Amino acid sequence: MDEMIAFLQKVKAASRVVATLEGKTRSALLNEMAAAIEANSAAILAANAQDTQEAAALSSAMRDRLELNDKRVLEIAKGLKEIAALRDPIGETIDGWIAEDNLKIEKVAVPIGVVGVIYESRPNVTADVAALCFKSANAAILKGGKEAARSSAAIVSVLQGVLEKRGLPKEAIALLPDSSREAVKWLVKQDKYIDLIVPRGGEALISLVVQNASVPVVKHDKGVCHLYLHESAEYDKAERIAINAKVQKPSACNAIETLLIDEAIAATFLPKLKAAFDRNKTELRGCAKTRAIIDAKAASDEDWSAEYLENVLAIKVVGAIDEAITHIQTYGSAHSEAIIARDYGAIERFLGEIDAACVYANASTRFTDGGKFGFGAEVGISTNKFHARGPMGIKELTTYKYRIYGNGQIRS
Amino acid sequence: MDEMIAFLQKVKAASRVVATLEGKTRSALLNEMAAAIEANSAAILAANAQDTQEAAALSSAMRDRLELNDKRVLEIAKGLKEIAALRDPIGETIDGWIAEDNLKIEKVAVPIGVVGVIYESRPNVTADVAALCFKSANAAILKGGKEAARSSAAIVSVLQGVLEKRGLPKEAIALLPDSSREAVKWLVKQDKYIDLIVPRGGEALISLVVQNASVPVVKHDKGVCHLYLHESAEYDKAERIAINAKVQKPSACNAIETLLIDEAIAATFLPKLKAAFDRNKTELRGCAKTRAIIDAKAASDEDWSAEYLENVLAIKVVGAIDEAITHIQTYGSAHSEAIIARDYGAIERFLGEIDAACVYANASTRFTDGGKFGFGAEVGISTNKFHARGPMGIKELTTYKYRIYGNGQIRS
Repeated sequence: MDEMIAFLQKVKAASRVVATLEGKTRSALLNEMAAAIEANSAAILAANAQDTQEAAALSSAMRDRLELNDKRVLEIAKGLKEIAALRDPIGETIDGWIAEDNLKIEKVAVPIGVVGVIYESRPNVTADVAALCFKSANAAILKGGKEAARSSAAIVSVLQGVLEKRGLPKEAIALLPDSSREAVKWLVKQDKYIDLIVPRGGEALISLVVQNASVPVVKHDKGVCHLYLHESAEYDKAERIAINAKVQKPSACNAIETLLIDEAIAATFLPKLKAAFDRNKTELRGCAKTRAIIDAKAASDEDWSAEYLENVLAIKVVGAIDEAITHIQTYGSAHSEAIIARDYGAIERFLGEIDAACVYANASTRFTDGGKFGFGAEVGISTNKFHARGPMGIKELTTYKYRIYGNGQIRS
Repeated sequence: MDEMIAFLQKVKAASRVVATLEGKTRSALLNEMAAAIEANSAAILAANAQDTQEAAALSSAMRDRLELNDKRVLEIAKGLKEIAALRDPIGETIDGWIAEDNLKIEKVAVPIGVVGVIYESRPNVTADVAALCFKSANAAILKGGKEAARSSAAIVSVLQGVLEKRGLPKEAIALLPDSSREAVKWLVKQDKYIDLIVPRGGEALISLVVQNASVPVVKHDKGVCHLYLHESAEYDKAERIAINAKVQKPSACNAIETLLIDEAIAATFLPKLKAAFDRNKTELRGCAKTRAIIDAKAASDEDWSAEYLENVLAIKVVGAIDEAITHIQTYGSAHSEAIIARDYGAIERFLGEIDAACVYANASTRFTDGGKFGFGAEVGISTNKFHARGPMGIKELTTYKYRIYGNGQIRS
């Protein structure tokens, strides 16, 4: 592990250099990186071709996520430019006051330091995460999926080239040299060198990190999201939002898994909803009351806590808003929860009582996304209650410190 | 562990009840609790007398921290009233905007849920921490020092009495039933029931918690704080602040352990400083350059990272501000760091580059304190970079959620 320690020491040293760069400099470097990605498109595509060739055994969905082409490389470069253009999150005065001893206290946003991000196969994530960390004046340790190893290495090499050309330590954007499971297990204990770990991925990875980490973790965990149709819901909105929240991208963590419907409207809504879901080839699994109204597979108890990541929807008829809230509190993963209603009191109760990162009135849960929130790209969607909740952009990659200005004060 | 699980389930259920109480109700209950503490003073003092009797073997300092009397019980009640009077931190709109799809997004402060606090012997901490958690609409699990077990139980029993009288679940303010080391080790893994653990104490406790926790931890760790005398420092300020920061309360985490002094002023400042520290019976340990000027024990390498918690001060002569900053980055614990200077550039560099929770210009590090910051009482002083940094009051016992108002939006 001596080599790994030496690596972490270099990253930590690099983080101190990045922390002193002006915002203007960080933006200019990100724009240079975007240009370098475009200029080195051929090398990146060649590395990616090797990755995809070896990934022949993968599902077509996985292959699609892995594969780059000219257009996708240009999109990666565009993503870097967009991050470069974001307002600098560092140095923002979050709060400020004069304390009783006439000390002037300023609470100011500062970089976190060294951020480790563990993520899945998509090579564009490598560039996005590196850029978000650099924009927020942090050093990044990147650990992508092994399927995309060559693509990620090619991208990081281009980004590091820009750093080196400007006399900056290349370890400010670093790939983890050893990407084995054991290396990850070791990495998450290195609180002396790493300030934050963000794991994005399946339950096994999240659990490996959470159970072993002494470094603080902000996890991007599963989304068991619900759509609740209150008795005051308008049918057209309900159908449009239900279809969008389930069908548009079933593999997304902000897609819904369960539809809860008030029994007062179940008999009129469910047959029409079934027709709409049938047109979208959605598999429906229902509770007994649901199956008394429409044809559906029987939902088991496991269905209520399942994250399908597929075009499958569980449906439950509930007696009133209390039952809906209790169901969500019992089975939900505190990610994104939505109510469709016209009733003001029901909406305010739902938004108030549901404890989740994002609670929606009359909109699709699919909006839980850094881009849609206006954060630019996102490092992930936090299902932690700390330090960030929901979409995690550059602001969530900062912490703060107190700057205190005195003129000789001592404590009495 | 079935009993412990049942206990945690009750606390979690209680946290949901507390989360729905209005701010006005929480304040009124805290004032009732203050009155109940005063009314039950005799019972609390009787329990404390048993604790102090058994604690005969403790040092007089420890005994003093443990011991209650009429005045101290009144102070506990006063502390509750002060917390009751603080502005409600729940529901504050932290941010809000209209996103591109015309969704109205509000970022709103909400309770964390269940907060576990592990702390030392002082019985007043039991009341303070319980009140801070309740004020911020969280349920609290309290684990105090075993020396104060009866005192803490008596205080919690009084607080719970008020909850029960008002038809609220007493587990909103709960003492951990089993306070063994094994129970703590188990507790910090219960992320299903507990949302945050705050350990306050020595290195052994902090390490036990950090190494075993899967619950997010905000630690109140050691303070290795420095005072740096820049060559532009005025002597009078330097002496007054150095003495205050070291001598006023050496056992505090915000007291300094090391004095760094620019070599340009070492020969004139150090003899006068030594005389001042001698008057205050401070033991001095110096680097070779220090000992060439004044009489002091030799400082070893361990001294630079020691948290003495006693009236002992290490002194190092440094060449320039870079050496001071590097020394602090190497040996400091990122708690509180101070510079004494008249030079604007030196102050801005020090406050900018030192990565610590609190960085001071021309004031004593002893001000790092929730009370002094104007937060009311504090749960602890965070040496984490997440989720809170520095003094941790009721605002730091909240998290946030996004409330999103739409009118039928779906994602395209």
